[in-house]
Amino acid sequence: MKISTAPPRGMRDILPLETEIRDFVSERILKTYGRFGFRHIETPALESLDLLTGSEGGENEKLIFRILRRGERLDLAKADLTADDLTDLGLRFDLTVPLARYYANNRNALPRVFKAIQLGPVWRAERPQRGRFRQFTQCDIDVIGVAGEIAEVELLIATSEALLDIGFRDFTIRLNDRRLLNEIAAHCGFADADFTDVFITLDKLDKIGLDGVRAELESGPYPQESTARILAILAGLPTDLADETAVRATLPPDLTTARHDGVATVMAAVRAAAAGRYGIVFDPALVRGMGYYTGQIFEIQYKDYGFSIAGGGRYDKMIGRIIGEDVPACGFSIGFERVVSILLEERMAAADDAKRLAVLIGEDDPLDLAVQAAAAFREEGYAASLVPRQKRMGKQLKRLLEDGYTCFCVFRPDAAEQKVEPLQAS
Amino acid sequence: MKISTAPPRGMRDILPLETEIRDFVSERILKTYGRFGFRHIETPALESLDLLTGSEGGENEKLIFRILRRGERLDLAKADLTADDLTDLGLRFDLTVPLARYYANNRNALPRVFKAIQLGPVWRAERPQRGRFRQFTQCDIDVIGVAGEIAEVELLIATSEALLDIGFRDFTIRLNDRRLLNEIAAHCGFADADFTDVFITLDKLDKIGLDGVRAELESGPYPQESTARILAILAGLPTDLADETAVRATLPPDLTTARHDGVATVMAAVRAAAAGRYGIVFDPALVRGMGYYTGQIFEIQYKDYGFSIAGGGRYDKMIGRIIGEDVPACGFSIGFERVVSILLEERMAAADDAKRLAVLIGEDDPLDLAVQAAAAFREEGYAASLVPRQKRMGKQLKRLLEDGYTCFCVFRPDAAEQKVEPLQAS
Repeated sequence: MKISTAPPRGMRDILPLETEIRDFVSERILKTYGRFGFRHIETPALESLDLLTGSEGGENEKLIFRILRRGERLDLAKADLTADDLTDLGLRFDLTVPLARYYANNRNALPRVFKAIQLGPVWRAERPQRGRFRQFTQCDIDVIGVAGEIAEVELLIATSEALLDIGFRDFTIRLNDRRLLNEIAAHCGFADADFTDVFITLDKLDKIGLDGVRAELESGPYPQESTARILAILAGLPTDLADETAVRATLPPDLTTARHDGVATVMAAVRAAAAGRYGIVFDPALVRGMGYYTGQIFEIQYKDYGFSIAGGGRYDKMIGRIIGEDVPACGFSIGFERVVSILLEERMAAADDAKRLAVLIGEDDPLDLAVQAAAAFREEGYAASLVPRQKRMGKQLKRLLEDGYTCFCVFRPDAAEQKVEPLQAS
Repeated sequence: MKISTAPPRGMRDILPLETEIRDFVSERILKTYGRFGFRHIETPALESLDLLTGSEGGENEKLIFRILRRGERLDLAKADLTADDLTDLGLRFDLTVPLARYYANNRNALPRVFKAIQLGPVWRAERPQRGRFRQFTQCDIDVIGVAGEIAEVELLIATSEALLDIGFRDFTIRLNDRRLLNEIAAHCGFADADFTDVFITLDKLDKIGLDGVRAELESGPYPQESTARILAILAGLPTDLADETAVRATLPPDLTTARHDGVATVMAAVRAAAAGRYGIVFDPALVRGMGYYTGQIFEIQYKDYGFSIAGGGRYDKMIGRIIGEDVPACGFSIGFERVVSILLEERMAAADDAKRLAVLIGEDDPLDLAVQAAAAFREEGYAASLVPRQKRMGKQLKRLLEDGYTCFCVFRPDAAEQKVEPLQAS
């Protein structure tokens, strides 16, 4: 049988150049968060299906790659087999559910305030489509055990520093608070039970515009006046969110200002740390899709890309749902694959500026001297490879250039100094 | 239902301290091989079962975690269901099979001589036992497309440099050649068809000793004289393999010396690079378990640990079995988990020498000034965290120490300079 050499459907091989960029991004992220006191942790790729399907993971639960039971635990003779009879484990579909389990399992060995960073693959059996893969890397950073805004401030500053360190400039943090959104919705007269649906519609503002949001709200089961009031607030938002006074002026004056104060505190602290290198704006229309947020929410916008490159918020109730005891928590997720794709697209990463040197050695050259010459080049910062010299030198140099070498050296055993020359397209 | 918070059977959570050591080892390995011109690549965790079970992976094929088919491809109503009806993909059990597929799939985009490094998890559904896990990290380095000994030399030198860079000292490379082993077996009168079985027995020399090997060979279907002759060679080996003249003297003088010359060439080149920092010895009794080796084979021994910390060899026929065309190849595998466990055991890694600083801030301290103070500490090399100051300072400092902080600073908004003090067990 001829075996296909393609990777499985919806998955991909990563070539050296992209792998180097991924390593560069990972290293910068881990190093930056390390300086902020975050600790890197790892969990297994597999988790029990009980955990994965009991986590209120919504749509993602349907996308789990399930693992066949093994040995005598697999009974194919059983009548009316179901997927549950056949499988016991699944590949994780995010890093949040494993983090909650990890925290519960290792709590006694962890600091009281646990600042964790995770970086690793997750799997979802989605219908493959352009730019979407069934295995992709996530990067989650979480502060567990802090109820106050220090957690938000540290997450926003650390994430911004990581993005700066990777090479991003002129990005903008958008900040809001779910509690403020709730108050706006209540103020407009929506019923509590409708908040989530209303927010899901508001979340589409960027994509479908004010008219789209109006159409969707008007076709919903909401009081006409509530729709009109919330649309008036949205319509009143200034185009330039940086004009904070104008933004604040759009909010109904009779809302409590406590939430708004928290937002102001965080913005002031982040602005002080930013020192003009990146921006932060208050965006009362920011929703973020997930239902589990309970406090401040935030996203990072870069240029006019139609997606955020990082997002997160406070979720004080989610860990409790998994471990049975509420623990305050706040998290940020960096869109690792998005960041990598932007670096590739904008050729921002100078990851491939390596001096790739071919040390050409003849058949009769003493190998022991050649390895010492190569070692000396490595000390000077070259990525040096030993390459057997071929007879037709011109052809060989052309091939070395095609293969990614940037320079070469014809090794001379008797020379006091070895000479490096650049490889150039002729 | 109460959900267990333990990881799945045979798998484990990795705590921050070990994760940092793993990151340290990964980083040093990738950086060192990069300087030798190796390129890091990644393949998906999942591969088709056709590939995984068609790869002559031996015992490992029985240990594959299989993935349930999805959607309409899963027909539970079918009669006489087999595991093949139910599953289409599996988690990779090593990095070699994926590398061969990757090479076949991406050959046109890769350099003619492809020097690859892979580092990632593999999964095997083995019966869990002490120190053996069902998910573990492998690190494979391969040179594809070089028939000559330059590949062996680069692999041995680069791997040694990586181990030195991680902190290992005084390790020893053991070198042999499968072709020489074949010649010795032929010389002793064993039948070609018996070579593999004879070598499997010889491979146990370290564990069962010369008497054990004798007993096993004598109970086999081999000519008495052949057993006697090969035992005489083994018995003649000096205890100290560093005495190379004595080692060579044990070999039958009528063997071709071509293989032996290759060994001498590699040893001279590696010795020149080692410059006394590590050793290399010729060990005619080194076998290495895998049947696929076709040329030189090697292992790295550290102290008196009962396992090698790295091993590999030339396998010119294996890629051909998967992609249908022979390509010369030579590979090394670093025992990543073993290396990490030795670092943990010998406390070699100073990965946790971080200056973990708690910046204690009062409720009324301005957060914007505090974040700037923390940023200044990070510039000085501290891993700085903002921590709300509690009323009972003595108790808080004790807890911070327990939580892994090494120093603290009581933030003073009005002070010109912030003072760092060590946290000490009282």
